[in-house]
Amino acid sequence: MSQVVCEIITVGNELLIGKTLNTNAHWLAKRITVLGGSVARITVVRDDVSEIASSVKEALQRKNSFIITSGGLGPTFDDKTLEGIAHALGVELKVHDEALKMVREKYKKYVEERRMEKVELTPHRLKMAKLPEGAHPLPNPVGTAPGMVFKREETTMVALPGVPQEMEAIFEESVTPLLQRETGKFTFFESSIDAFGVGESSIAPLVDRVMHENPYVYIKSHPKTGEKVYHVELHFSTTAEDSTVAESRVGKALVQLSELIQEIGGKTKPAKPE
Amino acid sequence: MSQVVCEIITVGNELLIGKTLNTNAHWLAKRITVLGGSVARITVVRDDVSEIASSVKEALQRKNSFIITSGGLGPTFDDKTLEGIAHALGVELKVHDEALKMVREKYKKYVEERRMEKVELTPHRLKMAKLPEGAHPLPNPVGTAPGMVFKREETTMVALPGVPQEMEAIFEESVTPLLQRETGKFTFFESSIDAFGVGESSIAPLVDRVMHENPYVYIKSHPKTGEKVYHVELHFSTTAEDSTVAESRVGKALVQLSELIQEIGGKTKPAKPE
Repeated sequence: MSQVVCEIITVGNELLIGKTLNTNAHWLAKRITVLGGSVARITVVRDDVSEIASSVKEALQRKNSFIITSGGLGPTFDDKTLEGIAHALGVELKVHDEALKMVREKYKKYVEERRMEKVELTPHRLKMAKLPEGAHPLPNPVGTAPGMVFKREETTMVALPGVPQEMEAIFEESVTPLLQRETGKFTFFESSIDAFGVGESSIAPLVDRVMHENPYVYIKSHPKTGEKVYHVELHFSTTAEDSTVAESRVGKALVQLSELIQEIGGKTKPAKPE
Repeated sequence: MSQVVCEIITVGNELLIGKTLNTNAHWLAKRITVLGGSVARITVVRDDVSEIASSVKEALQRKNSFIITSGGLGPTFDDKTLEGIAHALGVELKVHDEALKMVREKYKKYVEERRMEKVELTPHRLKMAKLPEGAHPLPNPVGTAPGMVFKREETTMVALPGVPQEMEAIFEESVTPLLQRETGKFTFFESSIDAFGVGESSIAPLVDRVMHENPYVYIKSHPKTGEKVYHVELHFSTTAEDSTVAESRVGKALVQLSELIQEIGGKTKPAKPE
């Protein structure tokens, strides 16, 4: 069983003008990794049909297992993700019966909860029930707009809203089981140490050596500047079919590198969690 | 004078496993926007030569004015950005005299400051002085690895380190003047209001109307879930050659939309800064 490779596409002008920090991509990347998958690429595009369509087309050409989008599913003019996906797939956007039922029930619930008058299904609201032909809606336990899943050849496309709570809720309820079915027992394990007193360029050849001897462990050094003494964080990670194997692999590499760093006069200690 | 369009490519496995939040892309997007440029796309790829090369090639094909990369300039085996850029450009990676001088002087300084013994210019350290042929180094006021600038046809490529303080320092010192030369007097202006008591789908047609009447102002609604009452943030932005024009455009649209929201029973107030 090989690793399940995913791509993330986040849609929204607010991400490209530096208004909003892309915590959605970060959350998705972490969840996919923890579930045993790997993320090959994250792309951020603006609320523009042709930009969304071309990023989706390019991702489809890379033939990875999953493409997960976030943002642009709501009722406003600039919620264009599904139109962009439909373009990329060469299909029409149509009202989906099940999605329409989901949207209707949400508004019924809002009317009851908020003691509002009857809510009309305006064109802006109806928009949230339109999916690319061949897609299936994913229930939104938190908000109004349903998510979407679409299978094209080897790739499963998933569209999630941009509001973090809605994105996370749909992911946990509907996407996690889809991913787990493909990632199987793959487990990700990571651990970090902080090294003091020696610079990144002195540690670099030691990292090369330890990685050569531990081919399944990835070691990445992160220099911390602004410190009076040299301070480098060393991050160890691996993905394995067995969590005990993953943990012992990382443990072995971590001990080896710590010893080598101490031999050249550095000090190491377990890193503080971020 | 038209707007200067930029792309950002951030390189690093830590961004794709959800270890590190991509604050670098956020910072760059904000600075570019404030300087009057616009960001068309952000791409995140892992520390892999062919991934970096293909993301750079794709960006070059879009023929925007700037491609700015962050990450992967250091001394370790997985600092591969310049190798990826050289690949994409079809040129060799070679020791650059000026870059070598910069790296040498940094180590000389470290030796003096930290009272270390002489530091050898090991292959890992020499690596930081290698640039794609035809590139120029950008001095790093904070760390060791120089940045890089490379002009190919209409596109200026800039490579910055991934350590935030180093990236920011090189950007401010060397990239800001390059950008400003092209953006000229373009100014970005933004403002937000919070609307309460009416949902995003009720506000959507009002946004359409105000945007139609104010074609240079972009209005984006951000629903805030988890609130007991409806709460939607409305963000107004524009870019103009004159800051007074930009401000008055946004102000006019903001007042119009506030009034329309109040007409349908909602309340509005200036948004709290994020």
